[in-house]
Amino acid sequence: MVAIARSRIAAANRVDCDFPIQNLPYGVFSTAGGALRCGVAIGDMILDLAACEAQGLIDAAGTFSQPQLNEFMALGRPVWDRIRARLTGLLVEGAEGELPLVAMADATLHLPIRVTEFTDFYASKHHAFNVGALFRGPENALPAQWTHMPIGYNGRASSVVVSGTPIRRPMGQVRGENGPEWSACHRLDLELELGAVIGADSVMGQRVSVEEAEAMIFGYVLLNDWSARDVQAWEYQPLGPFQSKALGTTISPWIVTQAALEPFRTSGAKRVNALLPYLAETRAGFYDLTVGWAMNGQQMARTNYNVMYYSSAQQLAHHTASGCPMRVGDLLGSGTISGPYISQTGALLEMTQGGRNPVLVNGEERTFIQDGDEVSLFAHAQGQGYRIGFGPCTGTILPARP
Amino acid sequence: MVAIARSRIAAANRVDCDFPIQNLPYGVFSTAGGALRCGVAIGDMILDLAACEAQGLIDAAGTFSQPQLNEFMALGRPVWDRIRARLTGLLVEGAEGELPLVAMADATLHLPIRVTEFTDFYASKHHAFNVGALFRGPENALPAQWTHMPIGYNGRASSVVVSGTPIRRPMGQVRGENGPEWSACHRLDLELELGAVIGADSVMGQRVSVEEAEAMIFGYVLLNDWSARDVQAWEYQPLGPFQSKALGTTISPWIVTQAALEPFRTSGAKRVNALLPYLAETRAGFYDLTVGWAMNGQQMARTNYNVMYYSSAQQLAHHTASGCPMRVGDLLGSGTISGPYISQTGALLEMTQGGRNPVLVNGEERTFIQDGDEVSLFAHAQGQGYRIGFGPCTGTILPARP
Repeated sequence: MVAIARSRIAAANRVDCDFPIQNLPYGVFSTAGGALRCGVAIGDMILDLAACEAQGLIDAAGTFSQPQLNEFMALGRPVWDRIRARLTGLLVEGAEGELPLVAMADATLHLPIRVTEFTDFYASKHHAFNVGALFRGPENALPAQWTHMPIGYNGRASSVVVSGTPIRRPMGQVRGENGPEWSACHRLDLELELGAVIGADSVMGQRVSVEEAEAMIFGYVLLNDWSARDVQAWEYQPLGPFQSKALGTTISPWIVTQAALEPFRTSGAKRVNALLPYLAETRAGFYDLTVGWAMNGQQMARTNYNVMYYSSAQQLAHHTASGCPMRVGDLLGSGTISGPYISQTGALLEMTQGGRNPVLVNGEERTFIQDGDEVSLFAHAQGQGYRIGFGPCTGTILPARP
Repeated sequence: MVAIARSRIAAANRVDCDFPIQNLPYGVFSTAGGALRCGVAIGDMILDLAACEAQGLIDAAGTFSQPQLNEFMALGRPVWDRIRARLTGLLVEGAEGELPLVAMADATLHLPIRVTEFTDFYASKHHAFNVGALFRGPENALPAQWTHMPIGYNGRASSVVVSGTPIRRPMGQVRGENGPEWSACHRLDLELELGAVIGADSVMGQRVSVEEAEAMIFGYVLLNDWSARDVQAWEYQPLGPFQSKALGTTISPWIVTQAALEPFRTSGAKRVNALLPYLAETRAGFYDLTVGWAMNGQQMARTNYNVMYYSSAQQLAHHTASGCPMRVGDLLGSGTISGPYISQTGALLEMTQGGRNPVLVNGEERTFIQDGDEVSLFAHAQGQGYRIGFGPCTGTILPARP
């Protein structure tokens, strides 16, 4: 039996703690009056990585004093591995010496990366079918190419915000009885997703394989791709969603590294046809990761990331198929994570069947999100005696500005 | 009669020169062994703005020593206006004093901006109808919302390159007889567009009006949105074009300012219905600007930017409808500029009716672009005794890497 690694930070050893020593997710934080800097979550504390570097405890070429993790990520995988090993050594039970720790309760968490570009995919077959049926009818639900390629679209990086940032209900053009109308969105929705954070560049004109793509992924965040369904229905053909997806995309403040998720690697959904060789996997590309979401404190749905059909590495490989260059800080949304049951759906559009079947939230009816509602995503991988958590990914809706 | 302003740089006074003193477009250049820095085109010369600043001739807070114009643009419109007036004073006929000039022939031109995000629109009704008919049949050609909103999609900023950069023919998934195939693109196309360069930020959650949007536009470039039509046809439903548009987008090296185009302001295409108030224009939003393209030196088509239905300011206003924040360095493609005649089409897909009617290029048949073909865009506004030109926007196709 393998002994469970324990941390010198007591709270990190609680079985329900999101941030045990096995996790060590990276983020950016500040304390009152202080500069933004990089840190790592451990228990209920943040290890101040900029201070660690200043004290000579670790060496990351000064990148931890930056207000985002892009510069650290750009140092490359050997540095990621070396720093992870060093952090484990500093934080393990029995290690000695003072550490620059900040109570998480005293810190403000910021966007952990400067989002270079944001791409959103569409990789749960259940979600693709359910939403496709609502938008186009069941006979046209699943696009012909869906089981052959990871379908994605470019989103808007400027609208990505960190958990806790209020989200303004958008105005927009929607279909009306006598032509289009200018209206506050009446069908505001969430999308439960995982976001892959790209930690390496690729070269224009050169594809990367699924295996190379895997090596370019630094880690993962939770991602809520807020969606204005009425705006989407009117605008999205033929060039895809645009303003319906630009009102805000919330990500969790902590980037859970690929290294931390490695023990939970598993296969995804069963393939209905072989993939073309450029998308072939050499090993299982998913994680056994419980994901779900709550509204106003009530858990609404719970599923597993392993229901997905395309992994982030496959999505990234496909993203470079044309020679499109990828860059450090690119963010790839997995697509809404939905299982086959209503209780496993990652969007209200699916859960309420397009608004036809309201759900109860703390005894109140909901079809879509109302002003003041708080939506929170969660995810964790369950190890033996510990869990790898993501912390919250939360947003509250403000009323529209007409 | 107004006297024509003349420059002390003789070549700038030739009637067919793209860069007279009325133009003064901004770019980024380098000379052998030197750093990238900002410059302005005048006749056959480049005025070295970094050197001007170093010599105390102009003051732009040191931003002209940067390798892109983003920092200069961020100084804001009053500075743009002041610098333009100062440059006119330095370069006008009769002005005295040495100027740090570099022969354009001795300089390498670079991407003039760090492209923050790239959005591409779809604003010529002729193009939208022609392409829509080829993809979906004439009865479904023009989407229902087309005359009510500027339809756009987010493109990929990382694939924007400067004129002269070779473009690699992409590989991709295409529809085959027995399911999808992995293939070199066989229907490689250009798209003749203008790109609006955004010079100011907007605030998340706050829309900008068309008038405010107009004030955020720094200037324009030529833009060729290279398109893999066979990849596009297979991938683009329901989330829009993705890898078919990510092989490369070429822009011209010189940003022609809004100020230089101001005398050519005019109306666009006739509206078929009133627009919702958030898209209403307070003045004519287009320019009387001849645009066209050539292949291997042969002129293929020629039309005018004023055939467009939505102006860049309307597109920018719509882009913020949901509260989406815009940032300095954002690039907005106008959409393919096509007039109603074959000789006015800005893409081979339209010109050859989906490849059915080949055209002759220097006596050789073409349906789509072949390896080694060079495509060059051009644009100019004709003033009295001068013209405001954009210089070339050129790319040559390299063979695919299977």
